[in-house]
Order: sequence, then C-alpha cells, then structure tokens
Amino acid sequence: MKIAVDAMGGDYAPKAPVEGALLALREYDFEIVLVGVCSVIEPLLQGKDYPRERLSIVDCPEVIGMHESPAISVRKKRNSSIVKAVELVETKQADAMLSAGNTGAVVCAATLSLRLLRGVERPGIAIIFPTLKEPVVVIDVGANIDPKPMHIFQYAVMAEAYSRYILKKQNPKVALLNIGEEETKGTSFSKDCFTLLEKSALNFAGNIEGRDIFRGEYDVVVCDGFVGNIILKLAEGVAEAFIRFIKEIFLSNFISKVGALLVKPAFQKFHRKIDYAEYGGAPLLGVNGTCIICHGVSSPKAIKNAIRFAGQSVSDDLNLHIVESLNLNNQKL
Amino acid sequence: MKIAVDAMGGDYAPKAPVEGALLALREYDFEIVLVGVCSVIEPLLQGKDYPRERLSIVDCPEVIGMHESPAISVRKKRNSSIVKAVELVETKQADAMLSAGNTGAVVCAATLSLRLLRGVERPGIAIIFPTLKEPVVVIDVGANIDPKPMHIFQYAVMAEAYSRYILKKQNPKVALLNIGEEETKGTSFSKDCFTLLEKSALNFAGNIEGRDIFRGEYDVVVCDGFVGNIILKLAEGVAEAFIRFIKEIFLSNFISKVGALLVKPAFQKFHRKIDYAEYGGAPLLGVNGTCIICHGVSSPKAIKNAIRFAGQSVSDDLNLHIVESLNLNNQKL
Repeated sequence: MKIAVDAMGGDYAPKAPVEGALLALREYDFEIVLVGVCSVIEPLLQGKDYPRERLSIVDCPEVIGMHESPAISVRKKRNSSIVKAVELVETKQADAMLSAGNTGAVVCAATLSLRLLRGVERPGIAIIFPTLKEPVVVIDVGANIDPKPMHIFQYAVMAEAYSRYILKKQNPKVALLNIGEEETKGTSFSKDCFTLLEKSALNFAGNIEGRDIFRGEYDVVVCDGFVGNIILKLAEGVAEAFIRFIKEIFLSNFISKVGALLVKPAFQKFHRKIDYAEYGGAPLLGVNGTCIICHGVSSPKAIKNAIRFAGQSVSDDLNLHIVESLNLNNQKL
Repeated sequence: MKIAVDAMGGDYAPKAPVEGALLALREYDFEIVLVGVCSVIEPLLQGKDYPRERLSIVDCPEVIGMHESPAISVRKKRNSSIVKAVELVETKQADAMLSAGNTGAVVCAATLSLRLLRGVERPGIAIIFPTLKEPVVVIDVGANIDPKPMHIFQYAVMAEAYSRYILKKQNPKVALLNIGEEETKGTSFSKDCFTLLEKSALNFAGNIEGRDIFRGEYDVVVCDGFVGNIILKLAEGVAEAFIRFIKEIFLSNFISKVGALLVKPAFQKFHRKIDYAEYGGAPLLGVNGTCIICHGVSSPKAIKNAIRFAGQSVSDDLNLHIVESLNLNNQKL
C-alpha cells in the first residue's frame, strides 16, 4: 500500500504534512510518497528517525496556492504537487492521495484525471463530524453547490457505504437536512430529494433540522454543497468561539485560574472527543480512486489519521462497495 | 403604547407569556393585551402583583398548534390567539403583537391582515444572535425559503434599519452569507445578490463565510430562508451541546466539582452574554405593522424583552425608516 501525500498543501505546509507522514510511517505499514518541492522537503527529514525504505519523494517544482482558481491552476500547473499526487493514483503508482491544500483544485484534478466511478454523476466531499456520541458523515460540503436531486441520492448511497465499511457502523441511519421534519417541508428541491431517498434501500430516517446534526443519532446527513459548506464553517466558528471564551473565563481572575486547573483533565478529555483531527480528512467520494481532502489547518496528527483512513478505504474496497450499493439502490428508483 | 401578547403560543404557554407580560408591566409603561383563552389566563393572574389598569384580556377560544399548517390554520381558526393578536394591530387596537407560537402562522396571518410595507415584496424574519462582541442581525431565517435576489436586497435594507434604529449601531456593516469571500463565489443566485447589494447605499462588506457570523464584526448578515433556518437551529444545537457537555465535565468527579464552583461566577457572566433571551424575539420585517416572533422555548424574561423591543420598534418608527431606506436604495439599482 502506497499513499501519496501532498507536502505543499495546507496552512502549515510543508512541516505538518511531512511530520504527519513520518508519524504514519512509524505507526503503520504503508509506503508513503511525499509529493512536492524536493529542496523544501529534504531538510525537514534530516536527523529524523523513520523507516527510510518506506518513504520516497516525487519532486515537482510548482505549488497551487490556497486562493488560486481550481480549474485554471489545475490546467496550467501540471507540475504542481496536487496534480502530480493525483497522477500517481491515476497511473497506479500510488493507491491513494491526500492533500490539505486548495480543495477545489483537488476536486478538479481528481475528477479530470481519475474520472468518476461507474454510475456516479458528481463527486461529493464527505466530512466526518465528531459529536458527543458517534461521528456523523455529512455530504456534500462544497464540491457541488447546485446539485440535482439525483446527486443527493448518490451522495447518500456513497456516504452510507463510507459509514458502513470504513467507520464500521451497522445499518447506518441516513437523514436529509431540511427546515422541518415533515415530508412536506422545504423547497421543491428538498421534496424531490426526499422522494428519491424514500425509494432507496438505505435506512432513511427522513428529514432532520440543523440542531439534530450534532445529536449523534444519525450516521449520514445529506445536503447540497452550498448549505454543507456554510454549516461546516459555522460549526467550526461556533466551536472555536466557545473554546476561546472558555479559556478567557478560566484566566479572568485568580479564583477562576485555580478552578481551571482542577477541571483541566476533564476538559482535555472533552477536547479529544470533539477533535476533528481524529478523522483526519474528508474523503472525496465518487471519483475512481482514493482522495482525501484534509483541513487547511491540519496538524501532523490530522495528516497521520488521514493517511490511516486513506489506507483503510483502499484495503476495505470502499469504491467497490459504493458501485455495488449504487447498482442496488438505482434499481429501487 | 399597547402591545398584544399571544398568551397561548410557545412550549411553556400560557405560563411563560403571561409571566413575561407581568414582568414587562412592572418594568415598562406599556399597556398589554393578553390574547388567548380567558379561563386559562385568569387563574395565572390571581394573587399576582402588577398594575391592573394596564392589563386587559381578549378572549378567544381557539389555539393554533405548533405543528398545524400555517395557511390552513390561519384561514380556519379566525378566533385563534395568533389571528386575533394580528387583528388587534390591523384595527389599531394594539401597536404591536408578539407570539412564541407557530411561526408560519404568525407570518401568514401578519402578511394577510397587515399587508406589506410600500415597496416590500416579501416579509423576512430577522434573528438577533448574540456574539462575543456585538449582536448580529441575520435575515431571513425561514419566512422565504426560495427567495429572489431582490428579496435578499430588501432584507438587507430592512435589517440594516433594524440594526441602525433599534440596536443603535452606527453605519451597520452588511454582509452576504456565502461559501467564500471572493465576489465570484457561490451559486448564480449568490452572485446576483452580490451585484444588487454592491449597488446599494448600504455599508456592504461583501461575502462572508459561516465561521464569520459569530465573530461579531458584521452587524447584518443576509441569506435565504432555507440556509438561515438551518444555521439558526445548528447554532442552537452546537451551543446546547457545549453547555450540556460542560456541565457533564463539571460533575464528572470530585475535583472537577470543586473547580466548577470556582469558575461558576465567570461562567454565568458568559452565559448571560450569549443568552438569546436578552433580545427576546425575531422581528418579522416588511409587514405593515409590528410583529415579533419569539422562540418556542421563550422564558418569561425572553417575552419581557421581546415586549420591550416591540415597543421600541413602534416608538422609534422602524417601519417609516424601512420605507425611506427602501426608497433611497431602490434608486441605486
């Protein structure tokens, strides 16, 4: 198993992806290919202890910036780390790739080079949100901001397969994000999505509202990429604001500081529980290959876990399961 | 100034609206009309200390349930508390009304009876979100789930007037909720909204992302009612989950319990700061009258504050300012 890691992508690149790769090499059996500017990567490896025989570098001089236009940069920068990492998967020189760089560029490069799985009309980005109970897979969070109901149907099928075969949930519960629980709620688009999902062979639990996502009672939540992207960032924003404010409270006076010391261990347990880094990245589902999109602020730990999930997606034949489930579910329509 | 309060609406009705009305009577100079089933309201007033000359009851036997169809219930239940409270505003027997009941029914009754302000095409629900800095007005959160760009433009103008004249912000900063900051981001709908807003006389700050809403750096955020409703409920859900989990942490062992006692005062300060009840309710902007929609779980304190904001909207001539600002901004298009 060989996994290509974009060494140049993310707010803390190249340090975070390189260190994440080293963590993964020590912890798992994968081979890793670091894709990026060799002269930048090599100094970061010096003096580090890791199994050298399982690490290689593919040198490529170009980098796609976080704010570059995906379509243009992917076409023009053929020697960028994102395009090269995807090409390694396309040419079977790697089994999977991951990047914490420009999300749109990864989606674009993967769709162009790897093409889509049989039966899939559009790829979707699935994010695994921690909740206080079990993690929930939300799809799509930005690959497709103006989808057709059939895309939502396929997203549900693909994310259900991820939940079942990668997160090992039994009979995952699938829900449609809407503005009310009744079947008649929402836009005509929502109603069309509901009608399709109800016909599927999935364990479809119906409509849920925004507050239900984090209750941890649903395994898969589907929505269009516009709404999904907004809620992803909103949830992050609310969580960050809370954590920042809790810190302020703890430091607000001497008595609070003492109190903070006493509750600190319990808080760390909580923080670990809601740590996105546990799940490492967001799989791009629907492309004929394994691509994981990592958060721009990914830590080495997040990269390491993304590598683990990338490897697992390959070894557990996720794409094969997706194609089978799509076949089965399409027959119900 | 006379304010009609729906005594039958909300999860804790009739107790919460009645107690909220009594709090408001003691604190402010308003007259209040409780609208609802007299035989249910009267026992709640017995033995209570309040200025009786400023409280009256309008008896109506019907109640619209939280899950009834708005359009049907408003047409059929002419003697319900929601329909009657709106009628009191229509016939100038009250200056404003508020309800914590069926939101759709309030929107429907208000639109049918009061009609819209000159130049307004659709009413919108504006919610005032607390942030760690200044409160932010988000519009629309569910009155109009499939709006035209012109509706979003008008929502921005109306919510800006609310921010300026009721929340007393100077030159409120208006932003469009989108999936990226660049002008080219989002759906064709987002781009059309951007184009209109850019032409306006408003202090338009451009696109913002989900995480920016709660940074407290924008005074008004506009979005369609589908997205707005989902983020409203999502934010509530995340906040509730945090608070519940913090409580769990504090009670998890003896040392944490001691720590919790020490940080409690600081936490209460925080809780007050993010307490939605401070702003009491969500104004329904665009109708020719003053209607405030309160949260279903409204406490007496939330009702009291909603009464205060209702009175202020009337005394500060909010609707006059809205019509003037619409005139001015329409000329820019």
